[in-house]
Amino acid sequence: MTSVIILGTGNVATHLISAFSKAKNVELKQVYGRKRSSLKQIDENINSTTNLNDLEDAEVYIIAISDDAISAFSSQLQLKNKLVVHTSGSVPLQSLQNIGNKGVFYPLQTFSKKHKVNFSEIPICIEAGNKNDLYLLEKLASSISNKVYPIDSEQRKYLHVSAVFTNNFVNHLYKIGNDICNQKKIPFKILHPLILESAKKITTNNPVKIQTGPAYRNDQKTILNHLKLLSDDEKKIYKLLTKSIQNTHGKKL
Amino acid sequence: MTSVIILGTGNVATHLISAFSKAKNVELKQVYGRKRSSLKQIDENINSTTNLNDLEDAEVYIIAISDDAISAFSSQLQLKNKLVVHTSGSVPLQSLQNIGNKGVFYPLQTFSKKHKVNFSEIPICIEAGNKNDLYLLEKLASSISNKVYPIDSEQRKYLHVSAVFTNNFVNHLYKIGNDICNQKKIPFKILHPLILESAKKITTNNPVKIQTGPAYRNDQKTILNHLKLLSDDEKKIYKLLTKSIQNTHGKKL
Repeated sequence: MTSVIILGTGNVATHLISAFSKAKNVELKQVYGRKRSSLKQIDENINSTTNLNDLEDAEVYIIAISDDAISAFSSQLQLKNKLVVHTSGSVPLQSLQNIGNKGVFYPLQTFSKKHKVNFSEIPICIEAGNKNDLYLLEKLASSISNKVYPIDSEQRKYLHVSAVFTNNFVNHLYKIGNDICNQKKIPFKILHPLILESAKKITTNNPVKIQTGPAYRNDQKTILNHLKLLSDDEKKIYKLLTKSIQNTHGKKL
Repeated sequence: MTSVIILGTGNVATHLISAFSKAKNVELKQVYGRKRSSLKQIDENINSTTNLNDLEDAEVYIIAISDDAISAFSSQLQLKNKLVVHTSGSVPLQSLQNIGNKGVFYPLQTFSKKHKVNFSEIPICIEAGNKNDLYLLEKLASSISNKVYPIDSEQRKYLHVSAVFTNNFVNHLYKIGNDICNQKKIPFKILHPLILESAKKITTNNPVKIQTGPAYRNDQKTILNHLKLLSDDEKKIYKLLTKSIQNTHGKKL
């Protein structure tokens, strides 16, 4: 049984609270929220507080607040010999300013409060300052997910920027695709199966090996025709990604 | 019963042959291939030919060859009062040079010969020069797919460029994400659930409404940290897409 306290009430905190509440080998001892109002949404059977001096005793304290606030917040924690972790993809372990041990417990998924998630399929990247703490985090992570990866701070920086490309930027390309369809009253859902298939494909193929399209084929006629249909912003993105595909695949522009 | 002849033996042709062979209300009368060798992979029970003069009688002739070759190839077809269609997303209906009727039968999916596809979930975009032909194509498309959309040539141009953004360019971003992970020996599969979830999300949400990430949050610190990790090519793409997200969401760079 691992005892845990969650510090925070945002998206990640909410999903962790829900997952730990259901987990067999975890005792969720307390939830801390800055304001009483933010704690209202928490199940009333869970012990909660707005006062850091009232924090109970637990093995792991999970700070699930916005990236910018982690360092300053952690310096307020007077928890000797306790493991304090944050949940951020972009904050180094050493940013934690608590006096005890430090770690990272980073669930790699986009969370929104509305959508329920199946935590067992969400990769959790863990890091700690020593072997015992890493083992403790592995036990804790395994209690809610089947996908636990030790990832150090250096790797995590790269993982995070990779997620920006494959998630944030990809979503923006979906947005552009949607805009283009809307212009001509084309139902965007025509593209849904293709979008899902493209995502599924890379789970069994190296993306570089399944590239297709006019840039890959060096089909100048189609490329020029496409450029005529686009706004200035879209054109810049089209040209740059076309060039990058051609650089990758050794075609000349 | 709609009678069909397929002209071509590439990816799209192969998948259409397989789908039509199984379809209840379709009679696949013949397959044409330029070379005898390319016809070897076709089921030997299907009538095939390498001679355009030997084409049999059918209601619909489907040209499934590379985009650039469609126009010239279609001019060789001496099929009076017959409907000839192509399967391309980027070629206008009027590019067909046959003497009979013209149409488009465009299955919107990436095909590779290796991967089996479930045709019933693949959107087929149809277009024809008259109502009767459109009805005939709708009947034919519905025999293999549940998703049939009448899309005219003007719309199809936009649909195609939208597919380039949401499929070809997205795959290239997956490739970049994979490269970044490889550099630091991070298993790319950590990102698979996030990638699948991002794709799934836009089937029930407008992409613009679910944008997240440092660009969206205008998190300059993270953006600058990310740029330090990237190659020159990656940097250019990161900057341009970040700017585009910020333009969309009214944030200042």
